[in-house]
Amino acid sequence: MSVKEITLEALDAQAFIDAQVKAIKEAVGGDVAINALSGGVDSSVVTMLGHKALGENLKTYFVENGLMREGEPERVVGAFKDLGVPVEIVDEKDKFFAALKGVTDPEEKREKGITQVFYKDVFARLVKESGAKTLLQGTIYTDIEETAAGIKRQHNVFAQIGIDPEEAFGYKVVEPLVELRKPAVREVARALGLPKEISDRPPFPGPALCARVISEVTPEKIALVRKATVIVEEELADSGAFQCMAILHDDMVTGLRDGKRDFGRQIEVRCWESTDAVKGTPTELPFAKLRKLADRITNEIPEVVSVTYHIATKPPSCLEAV
Amino acid sequence: MSVKEITLEALDAQAFIDAQVKAIKEAVGGDVAINALSGGVDSSVVTMLGHKALGENLKTYFVENGLMREGEPERVVGAFKDLGVPVEIVDEKDKFFAALKGVTDPEEKREKGITQVFYKDVFARLVKESGAKTLLQGTIYTDIEETAAGIKRQHNVFAQIGIDPEEAFGYKVVEPLVELRKPAVREVARALGLPKEISDRPPFPGPALCARVISEVTPEKIALVRKATVIVEEELADSGAFQCMAILHDDMVTGLRDGKRDFGRQIEVRCWESTDAVKGTPTELPFAKLRKLADRITNEIPEVVSVTYHIATKPPSCLEAV
Repeated sequence: MSVKEITLEALDAQAFIDAQVKAIKEAVGGDVAINALSGGVDSSVVTMLGHKALGENLKTYFVENGLMREGEPERVVGAFKDLGVPVEIVDEKDKFFAALKGVTDPEEKREKGITQVFYKDVFARLVKESGAKTLLQGTIYTDIEETAAGIKRQHNVFAQIGIDPEEAFGYKVVEPLVELRKPAVREVARALGLPKEISDRPPFPGPALCARVISEVTPEKIALVRKATVIVEEELADSGAFQCMAILHDDMVTGLRDGKRDFGRQIEVRCWESTDAVKGTPTELPFAKLRKLADRITNEIPEVVSVTYHIATKPPSCLEAV
Repeated sequence: MSVKEITLEALDAQAFIDAQVKAIKEAVGGDVAINALSGGVDSSVVTMLGHKALGENLKTYFVENGLMREGEPERVVGAFKDLGVPVEIVDEKDKFFAALKGVTDPEEKREKGITQVFYKDVFARLVKESGAKTLLQGTIYTDIEETAAGIKRQHNVFAQIGIDPEEAFGYKVVEPLVELRKPAVREVARALGLPKEISDRPPFPGPALCARVISEVTPEKIALVRKATVIVEEELADSGAFQCMAILHDDMVTGLRDGKRDFGRQIEVRCWESTDAVKGTPTELPFAKLRKLADRITNEIPEVVSVTYHIATKPPSCLEAV
């Protein structure tokens, strides 16, 4: 691994911003660059850096893959509109769901459902149409570290895993955040004037709700886990946790509806204490809160008959189940 | 439903025992009767009633189906030896696992893996060999109620669901406990002089650990959930809960072992507050206990990377997942 970390303690946020804006200008020249905004802090910071460096020559796309949380596209695009940064929504839901059909293996879901469709299909087309020669990406230090360690196959680390994106996908990739871990990225976000809801936003996985569905992903399962995600995020908004999530299991369990036996779904709630996602412990939520989560999820989502709370640490668990 | 309940308040345990001993004597006459002892309070009370009524003419079998908890056969048979009641262990593990192979549906697991093998195959043979014309069974009031309501397909309620066991399986079934709910059965157990470990023993499902494995049951999965069950029962022995259990999921989840990504198993822990299993709420265990459960399970069972605690009520959940 040739990248060297800039620690939070060593970080001079303004100097970092100036250096990255300069580097992006130099890398892109007078050409057009594009980037994908997901609304997470990483891609938001990249969007702001790119906008500062390139102005109108940066085309920022929000790819609607059908896997986002409730109201996500409108919320993200609205927030950047307020910051004077134009973002174009590209609706590719059907392509993603078609690619995910019948795929049960987690690696294959990321590879077929996300990497292949997102980069090769959607982004290659956007690059072509926009005339961009460069893609700005929000890869951070932890992504490379985990990929190098074989823990996670990140979707945005081509260079590090020996794939030449120019040759493979037709464009050059610039990764301005590759020296930072999450807390440092948040610090840069604040220095860039991004609103607190973005700078302090809990991490959300690249494959979005796809990572919250065990086994095959379908539009129905995504709709179900999306509803559960709204409830979990509402109830745990004040928990101060590093990350919280709802996971839809593929296993069916026995339940009881209107006095009759019923097989239904199980939702697993996870809520993590962590500083950098490398280690994690489950949050000690009050029992009344756990009960309220279970009651709301089973009442508001009739397909769900059972709810669990994750109690193991990372390691040997991971923050995400998929 | 033609059976009338004897409530705990209305129960005169000694009078009940006398009446049932008399009824069993009359039903069996001078013939041989057999019964299956699982070690639960229901089948233990039936064994004692049958022993009082029939003495040597009762043949009690403990069928080793390979699905029991750790040390179960030895413990149960030993306890009854101490009470002067002979019990014969019949090893039929291979038959049960062969019947369960490839079966994923919970109903089919009970039907093919338990009912068919247990009654038609194993018990029909024992009846034949022993010359017994009668089977004593530990069906209780709740079993009939839940079967009538369509909540659960109990394996021991032939008469109630319109199957004539004499015609179908070749023997007559006598059910001495059919008017009692669990608390009344425990009261009778105490009056019969059964030790506290039996009279106060938490309920365990008829299909044993088979009910604790979601989807297909294999010897390996049973071995795994058996280890988790030891830990959960040890840690929660003092919880005062109605029932506690470990459930092995079929879904695989992402974990981290020795710094490398790993797909592993998830164990779900359930611990219930209930009086009669009709309704239930999860026990408010201290968080330190939940953490200890997760740590022990993931440390002592390397295949398991993730542990959850069940937080929904019954209804809409059920006490058991299968």
